Amino acid sequence: MAEEKLPTRSENYSEWYNQIVLRSGMADYAPVRGCMVVRPYGWSLWENIQKALDERFKNTGHENAAFPLFIPMSFFEKEKEHVEGFSPELAVVTHGGGEKLEEPLVVRPTSETVIGHMYAKWIKSYRDLPILINQWANVVRWEMRTRLFLRTLEFYWQEGHTAHASSEEAEEETLRILGLYADFAENEGAVPVIPGLKSESEKFAGAVRSYSIEAMMGDTKALQAGTSHFLGQNFAKAFDIRYLDINNQLQYAWTTSWGLSTRFVGAIIMTHGDDKGLILPPRLAPVQVVIVPIYRNDDERSTVMPVVERICGDLKSLRLKVDERTEMTPGFKFNDWEMRGVPLRIEIGPKDVEKKSVIFARRDIPGKEGKTSVAQNEVASQVESMLATIQRSLYEKAMAFRDANIHQPRDYDNLKEIVINGWAYAFWCGSGECEAMIKDETKATARCIPLNQPAESGKCVYCGKPAKQRTYFAKAY
Amino acid sequence: MAEEKLPTRSENYSEWYNQIVLRSGMADYAPVRGCMVVRPYGWSLWENIQKALDERFKNTGHENAAFPLFIPMSFFEKEKEHVEGFSPELAVVTHGGGEKLEEPLVVRPTSETVIGHMYAKWIKSYRDLPILINQWANVVRWEMRTRLFLRTLEFYWQEGHTAHASSEEAEEETLRILGLYADFAENEGAVPVIPGLKSESEKFAGAVRSYSIEAMMGDTKALQAGTSHFLGQNFAKAFDIRYLDINNQLQYAWTTSWGLSTRFVGAIIMTHGDDKGLILPPRLAPVQVVIVPIYRNDDERSTVMPVVERICGDLKSLRLKVDERTEMTPGFKFNDWEMRGVPLRIEIGPKDVEKKSVIFARRDIPGKEGKTSVAQNEVASQVESMLATIQRSLYEKAMAFRDANIHQPRDYDNLKEIVINGWAYAFWCGSGECEAMIKDETKATARCIPLNQPAESGKCVYCGKPAKQRTYFAKAY
Repeated sequence: MAEEKLPTRSENYSEWYNQIVLRSGMADYAPVRGCMVVRPYGWSLWENIQKALDERFKNTGHENAAFPLFIPMSFFEKEKEHVEGFSPELAVVTHGGGEKLEEPLVVRPTSETVIGHMYAKWIKSYRDLPILINQWANVVRWEMRTRLFLRTLEFYWQEGHTAHASSEEAEEETLRILGLYADFAENEGAVPVIPGLKSESEKFAGAVRSYSIEAMMGDTKALQAGTSHFLGQNFAKAFDIRYLDINNQLQYAWTTSWGLSTRFVGAIIMTHGDDKGLILPPRLAPVQVVIVPIYRNDDERSTVMPVVERICGDLKSLRLKVDERTEMTPGFKFNDWEMRGVPLRIEIGPKDVEKKSVIFARRDIPGKEGKTSVAQNEVASQVESMLATIQRSLYEKAMAFRDANIHQPRDYDNLKEIVINGWAYAFWCGSGECEAMIKDETKATARCIPLNQPAESGKCVYCGKPAKQRTYFAKAY
Repeated sequence: MAEEKLPTRSENYSEWYNQIVLRSGMADYAPVRGCMVVRPYGWSLWENIQKALDERFKNTGHENAAFPLFIPMSFFEKEKEHVEGFSPELAVVTHGGGEKLEEPLVVRPTSETVIGHMYAKWIKSYRDLPILINQWANVVRWEMRTRLFLRTLEFYWQEGHTAHASSEEAEEETLRILGLYADFAENEGAVPVIPGLKSESEKFAGAVRSYSIEAMMGDTKALQAGTSHFLGQNFAKAFDIRYLDINNQLQYAWTTSWGLSTRFVGAIIMTHGDDKGLILPPRLAPVQVVIVPIYRNDDERSTVMPVVERICGDLKSLRLKVDERTEMTPGFKFNDWEMRGVPLRIEIGPKDVEKKSVIFARRDIPGKEGKTSVAQNEVASQVESMLATIQRSLYEKAMAFRDANIHQPRDYDNLKEIVINGWAYAFWCGSGECEAMIKDETKATARCIPLNQPAESGKCVYCGKPAKQRTYFAKAY
């Protein structure tokens, strides 16, 4: 079991990431290039993400459904920007049941087309609107450079697709979901995010406007953690989604789509992890508390275990694990659970039993400073408040890190320096040329134009022309 | 909204089935032949099935994970029977990212191969065993004749895959899951099932022994509602799944696999449905109780609605719907919810308000006999016991129907008559020839050899040679 030392984040961030994903048992490489196996520990985290989001979707009137994996190739050609954006990334089924197919089938990279086709069939009247449907699904995009969770050929996500009777309603839905994603990311994942509008060049292929939540990872790179698109009538026109309005006039519907994927697992890892491994936010952690009983012989064992069992009884409502493995030392177990990011460890040895106490060890504060002695009869209430403290503390730490690494550039030269290791919050005139030049020269892209910025004006950081709003520029995953 | 009358089951069972699936909003046809769209009402039923099964899997020590959709073609060739069984049904991706692939990729029809490959990597020592993993996934089988839910190109299922250190343990797991499926089918779905062993010709391609639960549909045909396979060391040898035992000797592992799919939705529909539409078992129904307020004017509305709201408050823990649509008559709503199979309807009109009562209308007992008046302050407790009664009653009714349609044939001629409209429970010598002749001549297949049959012996219904056990023969979906 002796493994090589985990690379530190400062030595090699990218290899640190790969190694903790593999070593913590989150995921593994599949035999097909660029595909992944999500192992039980990683899938359990994803299940918790699903629960937290699904509850929010249902509370806002959405229902789940399942649309097919295969989409006729011809569907993609109906929306011009959509096909341009997606055709280089398609996986194509050409044979089925031993025969060549008349029309090749695309393995869905996203489902606007096939869902548009079905909505056209289902929607007749304004009474059928809005339609608010989500699906939890796998999708495939033929990416050339892949990373576990961050960018894989096949990935898992939810994709919401809604149709409305007016532009206003659809826009409202788009922003409602953006807010829902931000609430989820911050309150469940402890990942601070900036909600904003994507630039023209970064928007979804086929959208009128795309919005995203952007998060800063531990290496200061940006990660787009969820997107919500106002599709206008583009897909309604391509797929003939029309309804009779209250005056019996035929109208095109207005649609939206929005998605959050297993990429968010990568966001959690890179926001909170440290040189010892994962640090998982208590609200989403597959194991919230691990109890490590400590004893050297049967005598001590029989002193310690009844206390462990009693405490387990007190903590039933939590996701709890007792590490009873006999072939490993407590020290090995501590490292192991630290690698796997369990937020709170409880140590119980014979001396603790004697003192009627236990030791709490916080994952987010390494060493002695993170340890406290807690009276046994207070464990249940103390665990609860400790998990809330850890959740809040992770968020605050990430927020402080982000704030410390966002700068307003004095000029373009300063922007170039800033984006080497941080985000530049800069005035931008909005032109695609300036954006492209900045990207070419610095590798930083326009991440998003944040909503609700104060009314300000200045000069475009690149061309110097008047600019009405600021945009975040950063290197991104 | 005037639709043609639903065909009755006796007129045209098959068309009755198709129509209620479509009209109840369970599913629709996808643009690709043989694929389906599971609509929100159908998916909600599937989500309830998932919850009920997932809880059982987790309670028996299983964890969820996610293995990839794409499997290299060469993997299928490693297990001889497996490739023979599945190669006629494969969908094949030949192009990705605009280029022809070096090795074609199969869209998984089932995942023994790729999971075997991963287990070989993960399993080193007896300490790593057992591995008990399940996944909820979509799979694709290129079927020629398809039916919504019953047989579709793409379908949804769970597939469990376990690896063990001994044959006994693996066999025990296979039977544990068979029992779990039977418990789920009977107690959640109210679908009586017979657990048993499949014949050699009906077993899973690559298994040593396959077990299934078999259910009788409303037209007396059999439906295989779940399967559990003891794979012996077949896949362990094909994929080199080996472990060091406690004596440091390298051994092949023993594996199992088991699955239950969206086919079970079809089983529920065909077990319980009647000529008015679906009848859903309360424990799985997406809507357990629908309240239909009855009023003719605003005055009556203001009398009725406060009572409706109070009752809603009492029934919070249930899956409840209040039908407040204004453009439809109560009669239309009654039919609509009957079509959709909601187990219990509560009607509240001005007269009921006056009498401080409400009307309960059971979906499983049509007309006046299914109606009772219930005091408003007893609604919560009465609903609970009524739902339990309906659940039990559906099971008993299905069981009585099944028992009435199973017969022990006197001889082969009698078997031929029985299987026209029922199941024959017959002695069979076990030879594949007899089984094949029976199938050729009657279209009835050996469904399963039930477990725990009394020690009996007789003569094979086909060849007359001595037979030690009985088998169910029936036409099947």
